[in-house]
This record gives sequence, C-alpha cells and structure tokens, in this order.
Amino acid sequence: MAESARRGRGGGGAARRAARSAVSFETAKYIERNIPNYEVLTEEALQIIEYNADTVLEEIGVNFPDNPEALALWRASGADVTGDRVRIPRGLARELCKTAPSQFTQHARNPARNVEIGGRNLVLAPVYGPPFVRDTAGGRRYATMEDFNKFVKLGYMSKWLHHSGGTVCEPTDVPVNKRHLDMLHAHMTLSDKPFMGSVTEPSRAQDSVDMCKILFGADFVDQNTVMTSLVNINSPMTFDDVMMGALKVFAENNQASIISPFIVGGAMAPVSVAGTLTQVLAEVMAGIAYSQLIRKGAPVIFGAFVTSIDMNSGAPTFGTPEAAHITYGAGQLARRMNLPFRSSGSFCGSKLPDAQAAYETANSLNMGLLSGVNFMLHACGWLEGGLVASFEKFVMDADQLGALHHLARGVEIDENAQALDAIREVGPGGHYLGCAHTQANFKEAFWKSDLLDYKPFETWSDEGARDTQSLAAARVEKLLGDYVQPPMDPETRAALDAFVAERKAAEPDSFM
Amino acid sequence: MAESARRGRGGGGAARRAARSAVSFETAKYIERNIPNYEVLTEEALQIIEYNADTVLEEIGVNFPDNPEALALWRASGADVTGDRVRIPRGLARELCKTAPSQFTQHARNPARNVEIGGRNLVLAPVYGPPFVRDTAGGRRYATMEDFNKFVKLGYMSKWLHHSGGTVCEPTDVPVNKRHLDMLHAHMTLSDKPFMGSVTEPSRAQDSVDMCKILFGADFVDQNTVMTSLVNINSPMTFDDVMMGALKVFAENNQASIISPFIVGGAMAPVSVAGTLTQVLAEVMAGIAYSQLIRKGAPVIFGAFVTSIDMNSGAPTFGTPEAAHITYGAGQLARRMNLPFRSSGSFCGSKLPDAQAAYETANSLNMGLLSGVNFMLHACGWLEGGLVASFEKFVMDADQLGALHHLARGVEIDENAQALDAIREVGPGGHYLGCAHTQANFKEAFWKSDLLDYKPFETWSDEGARDTQSLAAARVEKLLGDYVQPPMDPETRAALDAFVAERKAAEPDSFM
Repeated sequence: MAESARRGRGGGGAARRAARSAVSFETAKYIERNIPNYEVLTEEALQIIEYNADTVLEEIGVNFPDNPEALALWRASGADVTGDRVRIPRGLARELCKTAPSQFTQHARNPARNVEIGGRNLVLAPVYGPPFVRDTAGGRRYATMEDFNKFVKLGYMSKWLHHSGGTVCEPTDVPVNKRHLDMLHAHMTLSDKPFMGSVTEPSRAQDSVDMCKILFGADFVDQNTVMTSLVNINSPMTFDDVMMGALKVFAENNQASIISPFIVGGAMAPVSVAGTLTQVLAEVMAGIAYSQLIRKGAPVIFGAFVTSIDMNSGAPTFGTPEAAHITYGAGQLARRMNLPFRSSGSFCGSKLPDAQAAYETANSLNMGLLSGVNFMLHACGWLEGGLVASFEKFVMDADQLGALHHLARGVEIDENAQALDAIREVGPGGHYLGCAHTQANFKEAFWKSDLLDYKPFETWSDEGARDTQSLAAARVEKLLGDYVQPPMDPETRAALDAFVAERKAAEPDSFM
Repeated sequence: MAESARRGRGGGGAARRAARSAVSFETAKYIERNIPNYEVLTEEALQIIEYNADTVLEEIGVNFPDNPEALALWRASGADVTGDRVRIPRGLARELCKTAPSQFTQHARNPARNVEIGGRNLVLAPVYGPPFVRDTAGGRRYATMEDFNKFVKLGYMSKWLHHSGGTVCEPTDVPVNKRHLDMLHAHMTLSDKPFMGSVTEPSRAQDSVDMCKILFGADFVDQNTVMTSLVNINSPMTFDDVMMGALKVFAENNQASIISPFIVGGAMAPVSVAGTLTQVLAEVMAGIAYSQLIRKGAPVIFGAFVTSIDMNSGAPTFGTPEAAHITYGAGQLARRMNLPFRSSGSFCGSKLPDAQAAYETANSLNMGLLSGVNFMLHACGWLEGGLVASFEKFVMDADQLGALHHLARGVEIDENAQALDAIREVGPGGHYLGCAHTQANFKEAFWKSDLLDYKPFETWSDEGARDTQSLAAARVEKLLGDYVQPPMDPETRAALDAFVAERKAAEPDSFM
C-alpha cells in the first residue's frame, strides 16, 4: 500500500476535525552527524579482536538451547552442531552477516517522523524495561499502565526524542501475557513516532506485527520496516529460544531487531575491555548471522549493552571509563561490518535524579554520540541501574539530548561563520552584543536548554531556589497538561481496539 | 641549587619527626594520555582560521593600553604601533611564539608532585577565583581565609588532583593588597603540590617569586619553573597593563603563565565558533609573542576560557555544545603551535551541586580530556558560573577526575587483556565472577568512585536515602578531619612567616 493510500485511509470528518485541532509539537529530525567518530582501538587491536572473536565462535561456539529449528539452520549453513552448541568455522559468521543492510528506514505512522537507522545517523529512543517508576510526588513504586501512558505522552512531546521506544516501563498492573497489547496500543495511539515490538514470546512478536498491519496496512508492513525491537543475547554466548523465536517472527516479516549482548563486565564477560569486546563481537556476529539465515536482508542492529561492575557490591556501574572504552571499540567493530550500531543511553546507578545520576548519564550520552551510535535506546529516563523509570529524569535527559543534536552539527566555516566583519566592527575593547553579526545569528548560534536554570542568583532565589529535580517535576506536569493526542482515523482506531479486546479475551490472565 | 640540596636544607629533628608522623596521602601522577585527541576542525578550516587570525592581527591589531614598555618592545620587533594599538605583520606573531617551550616541568616542593605541562599530559588544578563559597551547612556566603585554607587542604587530600591551584576562593576577609600573601602561604605550607602565583599587581607577582625563592631556594627558582599563573586577556583584543605587568615579572623569572582569552561568546567574541576561534588564536598569539619579547623561552600556555551565553538573560552558559566545539578546535590550534593548552574545567551555571551542575560539568570534563587539554584549571569545585566555590562539588568533581585518569589509559591489547582463556574457561552460559582471569585482574580492572552510591536500594534507603550532595558533605568533613599537614623544615616555615609579616606591615590595608 502506498503511503498516500495509507494516509488517505479512513479520513472521515472526525479525523479531519482531529487534525485541525491538534497542537503541533516540534520534533527534531534524527541526528545526522557532521563530526568525526572517536576511535580508541588501533588497527592492530581491531584485527586481534576480530581474529579472537572468530576463534571463540570456531573453538568454543555458542548455545542455541531448545531450538531444533535454529540448530538445523546452522547445520545447513556449514556450522558444527553438537547438542545445543553451535561452532562456526572461521569467517562464516562474518560472511553471513554481509546480507544485512547497512542502513534502513523505520517508518512511523506520521511519515515526518520516519527515522533512518545506520550510516552517520543517530536515533534517540527512551528508557526500556524498568519495573518501577519514581517521581517527586509519589516516590518509588511499581509501574502501572497509567505510568506507561504518561511516558509515551512525554516522549511524544519531547522535541529531541525521535522514537517512542518500547517497554518504557513495565505496566505491572496488566497481566504479563496481555500487557504487550496495551503497550503497543499506547505507542500507536498516543504518539505518532516510531516504536518497538514485543519480544517476550514469539506469539507477542506476532501480535506486534499484526497490530502494525492494522496501523500501517498489511502490504505496507510486508514491504517496509515499521518496528525495531530489542533481542537480547543471554551472555555469555547463549541465545535464548524465546528471544530467538521473537527474532524469527520479526526477521521473517522484514522487521528490525537489535541483536544485543547484555553484559555486566566481570560477570557476563571478562573484566578486560579487549576480552569483553571479543565476546561482544562473537555474540553479535552469531546473532546477526542467524537473523540472515532466517531471512537474508532482514534489518538488524549491532547491539552492545555493556557496563562495568562494582566488585564490592556486585552492582552494575554506569558512565564509567571502561564502559566508554568498550562502547568506542564496539562502534569501530560495528562500522567495520557496515552495520548500524546500538549502544549507550542515560545510564546511571543513582537512586535519585541527582548529581550522581547526571554525571553518569552525561558521561554515557557524550560517549554514545562520539562512539558513532546509530540507535540509542534508554536515551532518557533511566534511573537506578534500569530498575526505575524516572519522570523527572526523563525530561532532564531529554533536554540534554538537545545538546547532542548541536554537538553533532559540527563547525561551520563559511564566511558568515568566520565573522571577520564582526571582529572588524567591534574591535579591541568593544563588545559583540549589539553588532550586526550577532543580531543576524544569535537565535541559531547556541543550544538553549528548555529546563536548566540560567537566571541570576537573586531571581532564582526569589523563585524558590529550586534544584533541577524540582524544575523537572514542573516540566513533567506542564508537558502532560499540554499534551494533545495526535489524530488517527476512527476506523484504524476501532480496528486496533477490537484486535486488543479479541486477543485479551482469547486467553486467561497470567501474572507469571 | 640542586634538588638534593633543597631537600636536605633545614632537615632538623622537628622536620624528621613531622615526616615520620605524616599520614601518607596518595596522589595520582599527572595524566599521560594513551588515547587520541578528538578533532572537529578539518585541515581546511584550520588554515582558514589561522589565516584570518593573522588578518585580525595585521589589519585590526590589539591594544596594549598604558604600557609604553610593551609598545616599545612591539615596535622594536617590527610591529606597527599607533597609540595603544599594535598591528602585527602576517606571520610575525607565530614566528615569535616559536621560542616558547612545547613542554615544561613545574616543580613542587615535594618532587614526587612535580608536573609535566604539555605533550600528551594533563594536569588537573582546582577552581580559581570565586568570591563566594557554598556548603550544605552554611549556604552561600562570602569566602574567607578559613574557607581558602579548607579548599587547599581538600586539594591536598584529593587523589586525582595534581595541583593546588591559586585563588581557590577569594578570601574577602583579608585586605585585597595582602591576601595574595596569605594565599601563597597557605599553598606553600598546607600542601606540597605545585601552585599558582598572584597576578593582580606586578608587585604581587614579585612577592610570589620572592616567596618561592624562600620555599625552593633562589638559585632553584632562577633555573626552574615553580609557578604557573593565570594571565587573562581582556577580550576582545585588549591586554590590560596590570596583567601584562604580572606576565613580565613571571616571564623574566622563567615562571609559567597561562595566556588566556576570557570569552563569553556573543559578548566578548562573535556568536560563531569559527569567529571565536579566530579571535582566540589572534589574542593568544599576540600574548605569547609578547611573553617571548620579554624573555625568549619563557614557559607559557595557550589558554582558552570560552563559553556561550544565554541570549535571554545574558548569563554565561556552561557545558554547552558550542563550548565543546570551541575547545576541540582550540586544542587543534594549540597543537599546531606546539604549545601546551589550557581549557575546560568543572564548569556549570547551576546555583546548587545538583543534576544541572553535574550534567554541565561532565560535559565539560569529558570534552576537556578529549580535546587534548594539558592544564585544566577549575577541574573541581566550580559552581554558579564561577561565582561560587562549592565544598561539596569540589569533592564530587574531584572524584569524577578519577574517571578521566582511567579513560586516558586507553585500551590494553596484550594477551592478558585479550582474556581468551577466561572465555574458554567460562564458556556459554557460565559466569566470570570467580574465574582465574577475573580473580587476577579485578582489582585494577575498573575505576571505582570514592563517593558515589552503588549500594542496593534497600541498604541505601536504610542509610537515609542520601543524595550525592549529602554524601559529598560527609566526605568533605571526613577529609578535613583526616587532614595532616605535610612536613616542612622549621627554618623555611619561619622565613615564610617573616616575609608575609614584613610585607603586610609595609603598607596599610586596602579593600579596594
């Protein structure tokens, strides 16, 4: 189905009225980097790691437990399969990965929100997975569907966020076997940005595809990528059959998957950076090769969720130098495979959206931009090692994402940027506040926070001496108050509602 | 005087007793980078900026007001001098800068604390200049000498800080014309790390040199650099006679100066990055050329204090993308001149050591490391746009400086780092916590914060649910409680005391 047809579908008076009354929220285009990537590994180090990753695949191998179908595909491809263990001859995995696209478009129901994943682009998506939420008013508590909806609305309202994400928090008040339906319904109806599908059961991945067929039209989904979903590897070197089942559904339907080792260094990988990168590369190559065995050309992303560990408490630690080294290195490895790269995020271990959270997050966000990340999941809202989605931190981080956009622009060097006439006009001892060049350029010259406080001390003091968390709480309330649902044609909405109701009625609730 | 003689001087029983009873505080060696610098400017952009900077010097020129001696030096060097205006023929300033050393040693009274400034090294020094201090207990207030002493002690106790700095806060309770004596006395006696001299009057620069001659011995000071001081340029393109007078004293005595434009972009320089860099380069070249006219080979640093402005409030803003672009570019320009580079710091505009402060600071610290900064003033403790020195933020930032050390180490690729045996030992589905490689390497593998909270939620909650500022307040108290003064031989101490007393008695107090 062509886009014009899709957009034209339904289109009754109600939809037109909705469109007319909708507030227009500005969303920045995904980032197109005009700055170099930062590379810490030498050519020699890269070659050693690549050689060793092939040694791992050939000699040690990877496990595909409870998955005879996968094992058969591997055997047919030339791998050595013994029990659940798949040993992949040197070079085979990399060769199989070559059919994966280096870049792909993920479509949104609003075509203005489509994103290009890969190349020099960076797409920012919110936090994924926390069972808890936190805000100043309510403290830390289990997340509910109401919280989930609020996060989707905040994501929709966030200028610097390109993607609505997936499980922005776990709606624990909805049965486990049904919450994916409500989550997808929320992303589809409360936002018009691109989103992620469910991976917790192959049947839920199929529900995701089916709901997308309602939203986008079946033909369109067959021919285009409309979801990017998160397929974690059970590191070290184990490919869980549930996740692989979801990957299979998505790959067969030409939908994108992030193939992502989930590594706390020292626990799921060696304590060394080079050792961790070796394992990451081996795991990603095996996972992406498998995706291409399912369907050549299926869109995938080279994922790396890697952090360090506090050896005293066993807790994962975030925004650390070791995580930065690994992320920079993984970016290099991904680019050498011509694959889109996913890593980084608003990572922190802090329990509160305080200075610790911000140090760790800023370290991680900067490193993510410079490492060449193409898809940044968890780009805002992550707290307490991912156990908590924080409302305040969501808008705090989302504001910082604006700085990444401006950093990525790079430095202009045309005549206007050179500003020689301004220097001539002002001269020694003058000031530039009123000069012609400043007047012509100041509006676009500097990134401007929508949240942080730049007021004089006295003004700030008179207004209550508020800290960042307090300013953020006010911004959360403002954004939710200003929220206006993006229009959707009533037939599509009714069809989505009916699908969810039908699927919910089809099986009993389960909270397991 | 040779170092052995210096160390041997005095050396009575009291000094030996002091040495024996001194608590040993670990100070990390200055950072020797094993990672690449990050470069945003293309070769073409660099050449354009360099060409334009020479155009600025030749066509517009710079002002050296109230300074006939400087004007005479410039005239003799071949510059065109009209009134206070010095126009420097294309290429001359760069040529004059060539006699400045690319790297120099700044000696500390404890030779183990000597620092190498330039090359691939990074030396970290604390905040400089705030008239106010802030802590949780006392709020925001004018700084006193007692506060100053506390900051010097904290700097001495901070593992990741290599330098004691200069005006860590303005001791406003000491007369303006005498406070430099107390400040230098504090750096010399409460710490054994390297420090900065006074620049607020040429006579105070001379006092700084004279006190160093007492501390290090006159011959040693003649032949070695024992101070690095901050000489700001009054941007745009004005070289204040007081600062130039201090520079003259230091250069004549072979002491180092940071020649630093002080720029809030949009006010003291054009709103564009390329325009600002052009002005920075022109100013620094003029200042460093002048230092070499005073004394060929005098050690200097290419400085760049540059930030952006909030065009609504006129307030300077920190940790912004534009500041990052300028700093990355200035690092490139400094390296092309083979000069040590000073920039970056724990910059923030926030009124509190909260998340805003930490985002802005982390942005700035990371950018500083990657831009190739050699001397980072303000590396910890900066708050509220530099108006406030924060006790809590001092230890918060100082802790983050540890992360910079580990980042700068780069990635090892030897056999132990490759960790193939660990991957073999653990295999698919295992874990690395107990494996031989982890046991052998975990202690050194990951940077560990001395401040941040990594505890489980329940433990953290039971301990009072403290935020970073609260943890930092406790750490400030602990460090000051543990502080033990480094030993000094009593004769030197008596001579320093006598010098300060004599100079204070020589003129009436002035608070202007």
